[in-house]
Amino acid sequence: MAYSCTYCLLSIVLDEHALERHSQFIRIFERYAIPPEAQENYDTSQDGTNKANKGGMIYGDYLQLDKIINAQELQSEKKGNKIHDEHLFIITHQAYELWFKQILWELDSVREIFQNGQVRDERNMLKVVSRIHRIAMILKLLVDQFAVMETMTALDFFDFRNYLVPASGFQSLQFRLLENKIGVPENLRVPYNRKHYRDNFKGKENELLLRSELEPTLLLLVEQWLERTPGLEPDGFDFWGKLKINIDRGLRDEFTDIQSKPAFEEKEDLLLELNRRKEVLTSLFDEKRHEHLLSKGERRISYKALQGALMIYFYREEPRFQVPFQLLNSLMDIDALMTKWRYNHVCMVQRMIGGKAGTGGSSGYQYLRSTMSDRYKVFVDLFNLATFLVPRHWIPKLTSSIHKFLYTAECCDSSYFSSEESD
Amino acid sequence: MAYSCTYCLLSIVLDEHALERHSQFIRIFERYAIPPEAQENYDTSQDGTNKANKGGMIYGDYLQLDKIINAQELQSEKKGNKIHDEHLFIITHQAYELWFKQILWELDSVREIFQNGQVRDERNMLKVVSRIHRIAMILKLLVDQFAVMETMTALDFFDFRNYLVPASGFQSLQFRLLENKIGVPENLRVPYNRKHYRDNFKGKENELLLRSELEPTLLLLVEQWLERTPGLEPDGFDFWGKLKINIDRGLRDEFTDIQSKPAFEEKEDLLLELNRRKEVLTSLFDEKRHEHLLSKGERRISYKALQGALMIYFYREEPRFQVPFQLLNSLMDIDALMTKWRYNHVCMVQRMIGGKAGTGGSSGYQYLRSTMSDRYKVFVDLFNLATFLVPRHWIPKLTSSIHKFLYTAECCDSSYFSSEESD
Amino acid sequence: MAYSCTYCLLSIVLDEHALERHSQFIRIFERYAIPPEAQENYDTSQDGTNKANKGGMIYGDYLQLDKIINAQELQSEKKGNKIHDEHLFIITHQAYELWFKQILWELDSVREIFQNGQVRDERNMLKVVSRIHRIAMILKLLVDQFAVMETMTALDFFDFRNYLVPASGFQSLQFRLLENKIGVPENLRVPYNRKHYRDNFKGKENELLLRSELEPTLLLLVEQWLERTPGLEPDGFDFWGKLKINIDRGLRDEFTDIQSKPAFEEKEDLLLELNRRKEVLTSLFDEKRHEHLLSKGERRISYKALQGALMIYFYREEPRFQVPFQLLNSLMDIDALMTKWRYNHVCMVQRMIGGKAGTGGSSGYQYLRSTMSDRYKVFVDLFNLATFLVPRHWIPKLTSSIHKFLYTAECCDSSYFSSEESD
Amino acid sequence: MAYSCTYCLLSIVLDEHALERHSQFIRIFERYAIPPEAQENYDTSQDGTNKANKGGMIYGDYLQLDKIINAQELQSEKKGNKIHDEHLFIITHQAYELWFKQILWELDSVREIFQNGQVRDERNMLKVVSRIHRIAMILKLLVDQFAVMETMTALDFFDFRNYLVPASGFQSLQFRLLENKIGVPENLRVPYNRKHYRDNFKGKENELLLRSELEPTLLLLVEQWLERTPGLEPDGFDFWGKLKINIDRGLRDEFTDIQSKPAFEEKEDLLLELNRRKEVLTSLFDEKRHEHLLSKGERRISYKALQGALMIYFYREEPRFQVPFQLLNSLMDIDALMTKWRYNHVCMVQRMIGGKAGTGGSSGYQYLRSTMSDRYKVFVDLFNLATFLVPRHWIPKLTSSIHKFLYTAECCDSSYFSSEESD
Repeated sequence: MAYSCTYCLLSIVLDEHALERHSQFIRIFERYAIPPEAQENYDTSQDGTNKANKGGMIYGDYLQLDKIINAQELQSEKKGNKIHDEHLFIITHQAYELWFKQILWELDSVREIFQNGQVRDERNMLKVVSRIHRIAMILKLLVDQFAVMETMTALDFFDFRNYLVPASGFQSLQFRLLENKIGVPENLRVPYNRKHYRDNFKGKENELLLRSELEPTLLLLVEQWLERTPGLEPDGFDFWGKLKINIDRGLRDEFTDIQSKPAFEEKEDLLLELNRRKEVLTSLFDEKRHEHLLSKGERRISYKALQGALMIYFYREEPRFQVPFQLLNSLMDIDALMTKWRYNHVCMVQRMIGGKAGTGGSSGYQYLRSTMSDRYKVFVDLFNLATFLVPRHWIPKLTSSIHKFLYTAECCDSSYFSSEESD
Repeated sequence: MAYSCTYCLLSIVLDEHALERHSQFIRIFERYAIPPEAQENYDTSQDGTNKANKGGMIYGDYLQLDKIINAQELQSEKKGNKIHDEHLFIITHQAYELWFKQILWELDSVREIFQNGQVRDERNMLKVVSRIHRIAMILKLLVDQFAVMETMTALDFFDFRNYLVPASGFQSLQFRLLENKIGVPENLRVPYNRKHYRDNFKGKENELLLRSELEPTLLLLVEQWLERTPGLEPDGFDFWGKLKINIDRGLRDEFTDIQSKPAFEEKEDLLLELNRRKEVLTSLFDEKRHEHLLSKGERRISYKALQGALMIYFYREEPRFQVPFQLLNSLMDIDALMTKWRYNHVCMVQRMIGGKAGTGGSSGYQYLRSTMSDRYKVFVDLFNLATFLVPRHWIPKLTSSIHKFLYTAECCDSSYFSSEESD
Repeated sequence: MAYSCTYCLLSIVLDEHALERHSQFIRIFERYAIPPEAQENYDTSQDGTNKANKGGMIYGDYLQLDKIINAQELQSEKKGNKIHDEHLFIITHQAYELWFKQILWELDSVREIFQNGQVRDERNMLKVVSRIHRIAMILKLLVDQFAVMETMTALDFFDFRNYLVPASGFQSLQFRLLENKIGVPENLRVPYNRKHYRDNFKGKENELLLRSELEPTLLLLVEQWLERTPGLEPDGFDFWGKLKINIDRGLRDEFTDIQSKPAFEEKEDLLLELNRRKEVLTSLFDEKRHEHLLSKGERRISYKALQGALMIYFYREEPRFQVPFQLLNSLMDIDALMTKWRYNHVCMVQRMIGGKAGTGGSSGYQYLRSTMSDRYKVFVDLFNLATFLVPRHWIPKLTSSIHKFLYTAECCDSSYFSSEESD
Repeated sequence: MAYSCTYCLLSIVLDEHALERHSQFIRIFERYAIPPEAQENYDTSQDGTNKANKGGMIYGDYLQLDKIINAQELQSEKKGNKIHDEHLFIITHQAYELWFKQILWELDSVREIFQNGQVRDERNMLKVVSRIHRIAMILKLLVDQFAVMETMTALDFFDFRNYLVPASGFQSLQFRLLENKIGVPENLRVPYNRKHYRDNFKGKENELLLRSELEPTLLLLVEQWLERTPGLEPDGFDFWGKLKINIDRGLRDEFTDIQSKPAFEEKEDLLLELNRRKEVLTSLFDEKRHEHLLSKGERRISYKALQGALMIYFYREEPRFQVPFQLLNSLMDIDALMTKWRYNHVCMVQRMIGGKAGTGGSSGYQYLRSTMSDRYKVFVDLFNLATFLVPRHWIPKLTSSIHKFLYTAECCDSSYFSSEESD
């Protein structure tokens, strides 16, 4: 006989005799096993001062639930034809907007740390990397969230979509701000409804967008930070100069190595392959080409910053570069998740409306699909660096002076710790 | 040289010569390839009437974003010590509440369909099963949502948790309503702060909870629906009677079979095992025992409803039972996901506050842990039926009259389809 | 003092006095509370005959773990330079292949049901829809699985990728089979390494691929099944004829309606919009155009099948169409998840190797990106039907004879149920 | 007219006239726009030497797919009654075992780094934290994997579960090894089938388990590492001593503060609350109590290690503690995910078999449920530290000498970097 003890989560199987005795026992247990003074505290779930009684803040007030859960007005209902699924449509979008707000919150705080120069004190790196990672976690949730929306079929949507015209997801101010603050460049944006993206917003919203374009983007701030990577100084460790030498030598050695072999079928292929690699690797040191690619939007960070990023990649295990390396990875996570979000959005829209025009008048599906281009990626350079990796023994060896650097973090604010004497 | 064509997502690799020619080409392409009248529509993302311009509803108004994204007030900030992570705490809880509202929306609609007797017309079963499935999908999202909250460490939380006292997640009205409407029984609830759960709410909230207890729960409505399962009629197909006969015979045959074998080591074990199964299976037909378990809360649905559920299990492939079978599975999904949500909640709370009292005064961890008991499961009977499965050849064969039943859906509202002549 | 009771998962807080008494109590509890004969069974986790002891199958043998967990040989290790992360690379791909096998298993079983004509007996629809849904669930897992692989950085991968040449994910026989059996058309495939996709495989693998192209694909089988949708008969309910009449009338009515209004600014727009819709909707009935699109691969199912699908969409709540409607949705799920899988694959590859050539010699990133085109979608028509939805009151009303049809499932195998007399 | 350009993923809408011209254009484009020598490389997906042709390793051989995908033998089929869903059962378990192997791979590598003292050189911390994080990511996947298994219903399972007897998931050697190597203590394990857990394994497996118990567990290694946290030295920074002083003073100040207030209703409560906190916080410094809790398994790490962990918590932003802090969090992730895995397992088993005995003879459900107790948690102490947090201004201020420590990483292997002169 299955019996579920009040004091445990385990069900236990007893015969009826045993059950009876157990019940008696529990009765005694409750009476005697715990002395009265303890009993009071026994059920710890009943423990504590009942604070809720005594005034003070209440959950619902704290969360302003009167606003949050009273903000769902079905247009279909208003127009006399209540469609059940419109509620899901509203809630889903509101949930997206809540999370966009949180992303903006994190983004702004990170940008502030970078901008204030606080990032020079490496104590702040944990915060930065944690918050960027949190943005990634939120984006992951938002990608999964489409699964809920997709429980609505095209037919369910059709029943109310005409009531929404011309409201459109494109008009999400927060999402546009988000893109701007990360660093989607204004000049690479696909026009929407044949107008500059910003012209689809009016008044204060238009202004906020403009302002966000003028503020330093996360991309810009990361670029500036990368430019300061210790070890790049030409008159110091001179990472870039050393790397060029090593790569040249490495390629030469490989060439000699292949040449020295007797002729065989694949020799030609190997030389071809080597040539190709040579072309790729030497292009890395062509600053002019970099500037050209920059001007076309195919690269996004300065030549110096690119060097910094590669340096962090190669020496990622140095104590001082460990968290920066994590940061670069998390920035790629964000980029990748943004495009995954876009792609899942495209899929959902295709399912909902086929190739038709979206509620805002544009062909939603085509517009969204075009935003999946690499133009909307921000940290492309971090991805593309994968193209320029070299064998470990080509990487310049650290010198003891740079070593000291990389084992020692930088601190700017000498005031925050006490002198030896005080506690 | 990597080149990213404006007209495609594909980057293509061209040498510089080719690139130059391609660029020329694109220029020509843009000028001539598409006749002017078509060009206008060429970039379909710019297509359509620009509806947003002409007035009508705007995204932000539709979603009442002024409410939604202006409902985050940090208590820590108000008290002069702004803590960054409190924002995440607020947003996460608000997102939970939004989704709770959506679950209630689906739950109420399903309960209404059952209550109105609309469920008798099997046209409505698709709606029911889809909405219950949607609830499951939302719960799955809510389970995943903890991962975001868990980017906040105990130390981050400690910095502002005192500002929240005595607000507590227990006070979520919507979650209590949700439990009540699904069917968590009032008398099995663990007290909170040594008070009846409902007494932790005041005024209108208390009333709403009381009312929700009095309304038919999803559990009750499903029970009533199961009781009407075609095939249970003792003077008809008599599923229960036939099943008992078959089980008795089946067990007898197995006994004879084992007995007839020569003595061998495991014979004893086999008989023991058979005996155990016999005990289990025959207990199924003990109505008194069922009533006893019902009274203790270990079973939750009537004897008749239990029979209906088992019948649907066994004949799930019959056309008329396919969607009902899916429904039973989705109900279990909801139950399982609710406890997974609870468990993930417990884990998060343990990480945040250890064993300390929660902000509401109770020991959050202990209280939450106690709600993971089977007492908070609603559709336990559907899970437990797995204990009473029998080999396929023990299942009573259908007769042609019940067959007709099970291939024919029931429709109550004869008015909804037109007569032969009209369209 | 926190105390964790042996008999429960709950920790309880007791002062030391209480703790001591509780301990005594538990000792007594264990001795007396449960009568000896029950005690034996008390800890049910120790219950039962210890079957493992007595011979019979063992977990590891059943799962052939000797094969499974001894199939990881690191090429880097073999070549004297063991790279830790290669193990992850191998395991991940093996896990993918295991799941591909499961998908093929489900796919083959569903195709068999369709092919044998078993699908005519609607008892089999539950199986079909459940298995297609299972494939979707597996694909969802496989999409998530990239997150594990992405814990490997480009630099970790670089350390061993040269050892893998020329092995490449393209060579996954099972994935190609999977695509073929679902219905990716051979003539729309992007060539790989400048060769027909199939020519990248040799011997038995090449043969298996060829054979899979010749077998009826899931797409073809679904098409044939859709063509048999009851209600399409021109001399019966004539869904298509009725729909055309209703759409024509509906559009005409809307036109009259707009015309009758006094001139106002948006009148022109409304007429334009109506015209556009008219064009779209009337194109639906243009069989020639359908054949043209078919020949170009932009549509994939016959004109008749398209009608069947739309009929199921419109009358999805009819008992007989509920599960078929679920099936159409699950087929779209599979299509969408396949492209999501492809896209996540693209993202991972971009992160791992930038724009470089893949290990198989092709530019992995570019090749994969090209497979994301709609050419690789199979059930495009089901998505595109969303373009042809109409208001509910335009949908032809059911007549009572078709009604009878749609409430009655079809059964072919009259032998499977017993006559009235037998059990 | 929708047109899907061969060169882009975008479909474009053109009228027929435009379409015709576009087609002409593309023909010209293909002929002229790209010079012949470039055309060869145009479709980059066909680019590169076709390495696969030329011999070398093939995907399937590399992954040993002949083993992996030929290791599925259905017992039901072997016994003449092939049950479709047994295949899913096998594949799912095999996928679990593959991933268990990967977890063991990571775990062993991390333990080695700790054991070799390599961890003293903080260059290795990135590896450690990345691999522990990877384990967490794998566990997350394994939790999600249950969703696939749950597409199998209890009835589907019943059809073949008798063929599996007595194989049981308990017999997964790798999972037991995993538990042991993380640090589930042998003496806290719940017996299985009334036998010591290890006695359920024979021969070599038994031996491997025994050996894994004798090796240093991850828990032990982390403990030793925590004990070396810089700043704990009583004759140095003396974190523990300073903390005690600060806490005592802090509590005293709060007491004075409350006392000085005029009598009011809540004064009593505040004092009570303060007292409770005092009790908790001072218990932290009671070494004897710690030893007592250790002996009972309620704490798991030494008094010194506990101090180290709390120190890392409090000074987590110091450069030297950032990655260690991440490590502590990831260890908690693993613990939490292990119990979530267990809980999802419990839920699945309950759904599959109700309360019946598992295939191994034990009551699977009850056994599994019992493993969810805190006894199976390893890093409990890290969770429980949340109970001992104090306001930021109670945390001892760093002195400049400890500051230097915490900004400077430790390096043991002075040989790995070159002297100033060489590159």
